[in-house]
Amino acid sequence: MPPQDLGPLFALLRIPSISTLPEYAGSVRECAEMIASLLRGAGMEQVELLERPGRHPLVYGEWLHAPGAPTLLFYGHYDVQPPDPLDEWTSPPFEPTIRGEHLYARGVADDKGLLLILIHAVERLHAAGTLPVNVKFLIEGEEESGGEHLTEYVRAHPARLAGLDAAIICDTEMFAPELPTICVGLRGIVYGEIHVEGARQDLHSGVYGGAAPNALHALAQVLTAIKGGDEIIRIPGFHDAVKPPTAEEREAWGRLPFDEEAYRETEMGASHLVGEAGIPLFERLWARPTFEVHGVHGGFTGTGAKTVIPARAMAKVSFRLVPDQEPGAIVECIRQAVTAAAPSGTRAEFRLQHTAPPSSVDSRNPYVQAAARAMTDVFGAETVFTRSGGSIPVVALLNHELQLPSVMMGFGLPDDNLHAPNERLYLPNFQRGIVAVTKFLESLKSFKNK
Amino acid sequence: MPPQDLGPLFALLRIPSISTLPEYAGSVRECAEMIASLLRGAGMEQVELLERPGRHPLVYGEWLHAPGAPTLLFYGHYDVQPPDPLDEWTSPPFEPTIRGEHLYARGVADDKGLLLILIHAVERLHAAGTLPVNVKFLIEGEEESGGEHLTEYVRAHPARLAGLDAAIICDTEMFAPELPTICVGLRGIVYGEIHVEGARQDLHSGVYGGAAPNALHALAQVLTAIKGGDEIIRIPGFHDAVKPPTAEEREAWGRLPFDEEAYRETEMGASHLVGEAGIPLFERLWARPTFEVHGVHGGFTGTGAKTVIPARAMAKVSFRLVPDQEPGAIVECIRQAVTAAAPSGTRAEFRLQHTAPPSSVDSRNPYVQAAARAMTDVFGAETVFTRSGGSIPVVALLNHELQLPSVMMGFGLPDDNLHAPNERLYLPNFQRGIVAVTKFLESLKSFKNK
Repeated sequence: MPPQDLGPLFALLRIPSISTLPEYAGSVRECAEMIASLLRGAGMEQVELLERPGRHPLVYGEWLHAPGAPTLLFYGHYDVQPPDPLDEWTSPPFEPTIRGEHLYARGVADDKGLLLILIHAVERLHAAGTLPVNVKFLIEGEEESGGEHLTEYVRAHPARLAGLDAAIICDTEMFAPELPTICVGLRGIVYGEIHVEGARQDLHSGVYGGAAPNALHALAQVLTAIKGGDEIIRIPGFHDAVKPPTAEEREAWGRLPFDEEAYRETEMGASHLVGEAGIPLFERLWARPTFEVHGVHGGFTGTGAKTVIPARAMAKVSFRLVPDQEPGAIVECIRQAVTAAAPSGTRAEFRLQHTAPPSSVDSRNPYVQAAARAMTDVFGAETVFTRSGGSIPVVALLNHELQLPSVMMGFGLPDDNLHAPNERLYLPNFQRGIVAVTKFLESLKSFKNK
Repeated sequence: MPPQDLGPLFALLRIPSISTLPEYAGSVRECAEMIASLLRGAGMEQVELLERPGRHPLVYGEWLHAPGAPTLLFYGHYDVQPPDPLDEWTSPPFEPTIRGEHLYARGVADDKGLLLILIHAVERLHAAGTLPVNVKFLIEGEEESGGEHLTEYVRAHPARLAGLDAAIICDTEMFAPELPTICVGLRGIVYGEIHVEGARQDLHSGVYGGAAPNALHALAQVLTAIKGGDEIIRIPGFHDAVKPPTAEEREAWGRLPFDEEAYRETEMGASHLVGEAGIPLFERLWARPTFEVHGVHGGFTGTGAKTVIPARAMAKVSFRLVPDQEPGAIVECIRQAVTAAAPSGTRAEFRLQHTAPPSSVDSRNPYVQAAARAMTDVFGAETVFTRSGGSIPVVALLNHELQLPSVMMGFGLPDDNLHAPNERLYLPNFQRGIVAVTKFLESLKSFKNK
């Protein structure tokens, strides 16, 4: 197959579709319209922006002219993370730039480039008149900011999404270069803010230091009460539903090719790996829940010195969840633990922003197996089944609401710098991904709808 | 004595001598010139503005015609804090306005009004030909913005300030209305930043959570390692030089009239007072060192959600010091403790911004005792000796550089709104302050220089 022209990808990457920042709503919409145009170009019908006040548009398109054949849902997201810190980017985040075999831009790997793999594969088969399956695209613009619109839509319009056989998702990565990978498990998430209040107003540390509660120091105490230096989450009830990986999974993970020193030194640039003692790395990353502090805000942080005892402080935090932790129950545990951890003179409160349940897919599923064969074929190596430590809420949503298995074909690479400066995509994988998805779809000729 | 005319005070208060804002440098200079003129009017000689590029002027004046008598240094500052938030002022900050028995204006209590008490008292005695001591005035214009000029001058011109017996400072407050107060102790300070680094760059919590060091969570651990929920500073060696208050001080502090509930509820608005268990409030505020977090910066704190594992985090912190903690030695203890508290995978570093040593004055010092007698006489109540939890760097400077005891006569009140909107001065205290300082100076007739 001829290599794919990069024009559409460049055009998509130039739009700063940052869904979490309200001032970029116009760009998000512009990006949705470009996706709609690409879907039309791929032969899709009924293409439309699904709109709802206060939400970013979903983009829908379908092609249903393969009677008797399976119907697949193609999912991806066109929104991206904020690019800051800007000064750490080598080239500007929204000016896609090729250096070596990589294309650098915010969103190129998460998820615009991988989404385009799906669109281009379908486009090629449609253009050739050989698309062997029915197709529905549902592309969202809120994956990086909670995804409420997709959730609401899936729940409100079961008819439009009825009769599906599997979901195909390109939003994961290969375990290693040249190692085709299908992800069969994802962590869930509980994301929110911890707010701490002390006195009515900021106070002068010379006058009140020794008697006044300090909201920032109290916040530090709450954060270390939730998780200490041993990296063990100390919330009562939090681990009750955690299901350990199977012996088979542990054995397979142990055989994955992996250079832990290179991971620590080259990829992360950390002096030591951290985590719960005695638990192997992949189990910590994929099958254990975590607690992370994403940001802290409070007091005076300008140039110079101000001797304020802050009355208020806030931390953005998240918990990653693993099967079978249920977000609702976990949120209750968190609320109680945060409230209880506030030291004397302060009040602490957990304010929920969003949740996603953890999810898992049976690697013996026939669509998963067919995708694995196509990837093995194109990459010339046996496809491995891994999990991901991240959360792709749509996978849990489709599984819970539509009983739909998700086939997560990974074409990103571990050093793509997702959510970080200098996000990039290895361009040979973009081309091979299109070939692999095309072959996978072609291999479904003999599949029947359920 | 006839009441003092308020004309000079009003004129001083109309000049917005905001030292920390460069655009007010002209006003600061204008104010210095008015101080010089007032000093000349009080009979001072050799009056001059001491200038230095990039600094606000010091104002100097002297009268040295009492051979054999003591020589006193009078200190005050003519610069003021910025007045914002402006919309919270009832009358404009630089239009002095009398309401009831208070005069409202920025700087009226801190420190123009109290400084004028000293000038007017000397003026009266000089006019009457009865000034019994030698006098040097050294008035600064940078007290609210670092005070470097004064420090530099005192160190560079020891000869001009030689032969002094005591410093007289009016920049503190009465413990309560009608309770004459002399401050005999101030806490010192070590102010700086704690910087924590983890991985080379920010990482995605879905991908690396469970293996990557989190700089913000590490910072929380460092802050709680320095001081835990028991409010005890855990730095090795930190308390070695702490000298407890004398039994006499403790007993006197226990007799101070004080409504702890009103302090907690009305003044601070806190649910509980905090601090080291078993140590009385005034001892915690005046005689115990503290650790406060003034600000924390790190990670993502915008609207919405970003699942970043921050690579860097920073806290602005200070330690208040008490006699006989020596800032240099304390800084070393802090540096080591911060470095040692960094959890695995992170590095933590303390970066010093500035220090001031603690200072104390022996309440049995004859000048302090003479001032106390004069204040008792004028206010009709026994003068109390308190300390302050804040830092007045000039007191430590004069003590360390010139071995000079400071007599801190307090005429401000706790609700004068220093550094806040509606700063005010209780006018009866302005008049009584002038009488008290006059009587104090008259009582020194029998004192000899050292």
